[in-house]
Amino acid sequence: MIVKTSFVSDNNSGIHPEILHAIEKANQGHCIAYGEDPFTEAALKKFKEHFGDNIDVYFVFTGTGANVLGIRAITQSFESVICSEISHINLDECAAPENFTGCKLVAVKTDDGKFSPEDVKPLLAVKGDEHSAQPKVISITQATELGTVYTQRELITLANFAHSHDMFLHMDGARISNAAASLGLSLREITGDAGVDVLSFGGTKNGMMIGEAVIFFNKKSKNKFKFIRKQGMQLASKMRFISVQFEAFLTNDLWLRNALHANRMAKLLAAELEKIPGCTITQKVEANAVFIAIAHKYIDKIQKEFFFNIWEGQQPVIRLMTSFNTKEEDIQDLIQVIKKIVES
Amino acid sequence: MIVKTSFVSDNNSGIHPEILHAIEKANQGHCIAYGEDPFTEAALKKFKEHFGDNIDVYFVFTGTGANVLGIRAITQSFESVICSEISHINLDECAAPENFTGCKLVAVKTDDGKFSPEDVKPLLAVKGDEHSAQPKVISITQATELGTVYTQRELITLANFAHSHDMFLHMDGARISNAAASLGLSLREITGDAGVDVLSFGGTKNGMMIGEAVIFFNKKSKNKFKFIRKQGMQLASKMRFISVQFEAFLTNDLWLRNALHANRMAKLLAAELEKIPGCTITQKVEANAVFIAIAHKYIDKIQKEFFFNIWEGQQPVIRLMTSFNTKEEDIQDLIQVIKKIVES
Amino acid sequence: MIVKTSFVSDNNSGIHPEILHAIEKANQGHCIAYGEDPFTEAALKKFKEHFGDNIDVYFVFTGTGANVLGIRAITQSFESVICSEISHINLDECAAPENFTGCKLVAVKTDDGKFSPEDVKPLLAVKGDEHSAQPKVISITQATELGTVYTQRELITLANFAHSHDMFLHMDGARISNAAASLGLSLREITGDAGVDVLSFGGTKNGMMIGEAVIFFNKKSKNKFKFIRKQGMQLASKMRFISVQFEAFLTNDLWLRNALHANRMAKLLAAELEKIPGCTITQKVEANAVFIAIAHKYIDKIQKEFFFNIWEGQQPVIRLMTSFNTKEEDIQDLIQVIKKIVES
Amino acid sequence: MIVKTSFVSDNNSGIHPEILHAIEKANQGHCIAYGEDPFTEAALKKFKEHFGDNIDVYFVFTGTGANVLGIRAITQSFESVICSEISHINLDECAAPENFTGCKLVAVKTDDGKFSPEDVKPLLAVKGDEHSAQPKVISITQATELGTVYTQRELITLANFAHSHDMFLHMDGARISNAAASLGLSLREITGDAGVDVLSFGGTKNGMMIGEAVIFFNKKSKNKFKFIRKQGMQLASKMRFISVQFEAFLTNDLWLRNALHANRMAKLLAAELEKIPGCTITQKVEANAVFIAIAHKYIDKIQKEFFFNIWEGQQPVIRLMTSFNTKEEDIQDLIQVIKKIVES
Repeated sequence: MIVKTSFVSDNNSGIHPEILHAIEKANQGHCIAYGEDPFTEAALKKFKEHFGDNIDVYFVFTGTGANVLGIRAITQSFESVICSEISHINLDECAAPENFTGCKLVAVKTDDGKFSPEDVKPLLAVKGDEHSAQPKVISITQATELGTVYTQRELITLANFAHSHDMFLHMDGARISNAAASLGLSLREITGDAGVDVLSFGGTKNGMMIGEAVIFFNKKSKNKFKFIRKQGMQLASKMRFISVQFEAFLTNDLWLRNALHANRMAKLLAAELEKIPGCTITQKVEANAVFIAIAHKYIDKIQKEFFFNIWEGQQPVIRLMTSFNTKEEDIQDLIQVIKKIVES
Repeated sequence: MIVKTSFVSDNNSGIHPEILHAIEKANQGHCIAYGEDPFTEAALKKFKEHFGDNIDVYFVFTGTGANVLGIRAITQSFESVICSEISHINLDECAAPENFTGCKLVAVKTDDGKFSPEDVKPLLAVKGDEHSAQPKVISITQATELGTVYTQRELITLANFAHSHDMFLHMDGARISNAAASLGLSLREITGDAGVDVLSFGGTKNGMMIGEAVIFFNKKSKNKFKFIRKQGMQLASKMRFISVQFEAFLTNDLWLRNALHANRMAKLLAAELEKIPGCTITQKVEANAVFIAIAHKYIDKIQKEFFFNIWEGQQPVIRLMTSFNTKEEDIQDLIQVIKKIVES
Repeated sequence: MIVKTSFVSDNNSGIHPEILHAIEKANQGHCIAYGEDPFTEAALKKFKEHFGDNIDVYFVFTGTGANVLGIRAITQSFESVICSEISHINLDECAAPENFTGCKLVAVKTDDGKFSPEDVKPLLAVKGDEHSAQPKVISITQATELGTVYTQRELITLANFAHSHDMFLHMDGARISNAAASLGLSLREITGDAGVDVLSFGGTKNGMMIGEAVIFFNKKSKNKFKFIRKQGMQLASKMRFISVQFEAFLTNDLWLRNALHANRMAKLLAAELEKIPGCTITQKVEANAVFIAIAHKYIDKIQKEFFFNIWEGQQPVIRLMTSFNTKEEDIQDLIQVIKKIVES
Repeated sequence: MIVKTSFVSDNNSGIHPEILHAIEKANQGHCIAYGEDPFTEAALKKFKEHFGDNIDVYFVFTGTGANVLGIRAITQSFESVICSEISHINLDECAAPENFTGCKLVAVKTDDGKFSPEDVKPLLAVKGDEHSAQPKVISITQATELGTVYTQRELITLANFAHSHDMFLHMDGARISNAAASLGLSLREITGDAGVDVLSFGGTKNGMMIGEAVIFFNKKSKNKFKFIRKQGMQLASKMRFISVQFEAFLTNDLWLRNALHANRMAKLLAAELEKIPGCTITQKVEANAVFIAIAHKYIDKIQKEFFFNIWEGQQPVIRLMTSFNTKEEDIQDLIQVIKKIVES
């Protein structure tokens, strides 16, 4: 459904005008398909400006595609991927990771979506035992599914731990822009420089129409990815129209402007919600998500006017996502609605 | 590379203006993701106008995705798919069909890309033998990879044969529009009405930016496809921007106008080529492809000015594809170049 | 290593003499391969005597093979299997279930290896959501990996629950004989009659050389299993030598005699261990496993004389398995060793 | 069915007495499972005596298991395996290779089951093209499915060719013993020494009860095979009973004695058949198979008295397999039957 503003997910937003303009501009004449074109070349150059020259980048269609194929490239089917219990790869990809990689996902319980080497250590006891899938990847989400953000130090610690156990660090960066904006660090500082081996770099949730990228920082982990992408049904024929989106995204800090805005809207939303009796913010608001616990009786009423997701658990928690084009007045409207319902 | 006009493939063309306009128009406000939006509803309605009410339609990103997931939906891993040796699923999908369905592809030799029940019959001897993958799908391409077109009668014969042996008829319709335009029949007459069970309906090669559809005519064969699509990494979050492309594509006969033009350009090209000594048209020109045998010494020279594909085989054959925006003067330019080279 | 008696696992035992004798007797002349022989026919008949006429039975090589292929037969790749966190399919099959079925395994925490509908209910909230693997199978182990046994009532409750949610009940019966012996019920009463849809019927751990069976009680769930077995690399060419083992196993209650003995040895062992200060039995001894918590300092010393497995966890727990040919004096020897070490 | 002597396949034979005796002898006491036992150690030593110290050997249950897992160990899912059109992996493994490796099988037509680099060369044109599965393995069968045998020179030529194109040479050696016996060469001379990278070493067809081995000559190709075997459901718990079969098989040339006998019986059979008018030997008799073309009207009658396979094709061809325990009088009986029918 079209709605004035949705708080369900940042993918309910549309295409940022600068992105759409780039698509329009690229629609001139014929162009070799599958990425051998100057638009793609230019986009790849942009990526190297942001992430350094030592990367390999590949464009795909979806976040699930980026995660699954990125992990596929660094695993064998008898290995396992350690992830958070609430991670997108564990909950929201319909077993695509298991199906396409053959690997087991081993889920770690977390309070705030983040986990540490301490959580992983006990899972490594099976190393070398042929009866057990062999731990090979630590997969984290940045920003997490709970709107929290790993610090650079936490990332380095996890990466060092992974590498010291002959494992890779994979990052689901569907909202990496929001994390970088939150930390005030560059994209590179919280990915390759922190030791991330493979990154799913998100575009769609932050203003693109369609497009995610898989970035390999560890050249050894790349492993003929172009074949994996094609076999994974993620190779676009009219590639230029994905490439120019990314070029625009990485030009004039569009990625950052969008993320800063979305994060700011989340902070504003949280600040207003905190003032409402009966609303409890349950997670640190570090990116563009706000989680609030609120009595069940209110939820139905609020849902009649605004869209958002209800999070599972004992007490009802609702997730409110902001995006690059959430407006301040949308926040105020939502707050008014909640206030009225709670206070009535 | 950007080129004035490419004859490599119809996917070297860009986005038709009516399609791009539809994308622009849909970029208003927020909208529920994953297809629960009014744009998608409208597009599905258009599909039913063209194919009848008894279909199920799902949008995916690529032709490979459409073929693989469509076949996945109607097979079990111990079954086999009978296809032409030069079919896209056999040659150009990097073993994605085998990898994602687990099935064997059994390839049939053909002269013109088309095959008949006679070619399939000997392959059915293994039915019931647990040592052999069990024939379950006949997969054909319409128009074929050689630019030929199955008649409606040929399709009905194949479909009846498949069904009488408890098999499905799958059609790779990456260029189904060109086939319908060629035959002067509706889309429905050469698919569902002819007995096709599952159709990969092509959009990208005929003027869309990104987008293919999987259509199930046989409701029994559908089999919970929404899960297969998600697991197959082919579910778009900002679905509206694929849906509106399809809506425009199926409105005011855009699909047909584009296909008729491309076919006409191919006929024109063939007519001109026939006049050039040393050029032999090797396949009937029934859709938007022209295959010519030409001495090897000429090919390199022509390639310096125009892009196209060289087809394997004893004598060199080159494939020239036309598209919705191939211009008459491009044809004339190409003809002049070839003439000059051959006559020099 | 060959050892006088091992308490590591019941598969450290050898071949029961009646089984070996059957193999010897079958080694006469030539015989059609792959199961079209009179030995296999006779074995299948034995199975029907025990489990009823309405079953389909297939022989495979290993417990992992039986579990994986049995589950494969009743699932599609986008579905999930709910199992105990410590189940064999989750911990000890090197991700074979994920790899061969494509499904996700969803693990449930348990205290004693058994779980109930209450544990499964919250996991069904994702039904119908295309982003989530769809719950389709409840897989339990009988006797469990912790040596406990589901009562017939508990089984019926689980089966009814599964069926009422359009799911199947799969049972890993690697030690189904020990469970039946423990409950004093027939094999049929705790499998098909209780509502089990697919059973991995264990032979190897209870006196056979090589051989497990997959039994389908729900004919609808069978689904062309002979092809799945062949594709799963579990079809024996000289099938008669597996069949005759099963025939002997199911004749004159050999399965029951063996299981009763193993169970009795476990009870004896537990009774003796309880008398030793510092040894705590941590699980009910209902089949042929004894779990004891014991101070870490003792474990190394005991291991110098007897083989067994150390179970993970906070306080060290060791698992002692008895088998069809564990002797009373082996128990006494082990007890003496432990006593001496603990008391020194 | 039990029959006096079958000519259907060498797997219709039983267990050689020396093999059965070895199983009986190993059935003493308890023994660590999964291959960490002295029987397995001894068997591995025997393999090294025959194949050299630089090998890795793993035991599995079936020829299909050996082929599929051996190929799995040296491929990625986007690669292809080039094999003969009539090879076991292409025709008789129910798409297990495709399903478990994800790879495409590319079949080469042959007259006599053997192929050469000339047949493979045209298939390498796709190297580097992301749309095509990448050729990585040449898989041959020795002795072939048509009873012919590659010479050592032919093997070396194929191996050199494979390696010079960054490919592996895989050999399905279900009847490798018959090939070595035929050539008068050691097992090593026609495998590792000739450049074979991975060998499926057959035991079952030549007198064992159950057991095949996967041998890696190229250590780089091994790639953590123990996990692949476990995930491939081919790890035996009571491994000792497979190991001792192999030990006996490789002791006192049992493998060779059996193979020489079977080959001799085939020669005898062929010599007698040649004398019968209307019988034409269609393939060189180099191992233990005899193929004869014979009028259709005779086949039914012969089948009433002896079992064998009818081979597909234009004119009816029947395959007669001999084995380690085919007796001369069985041959004479068969010849008499055929003679009588043909001459009546």
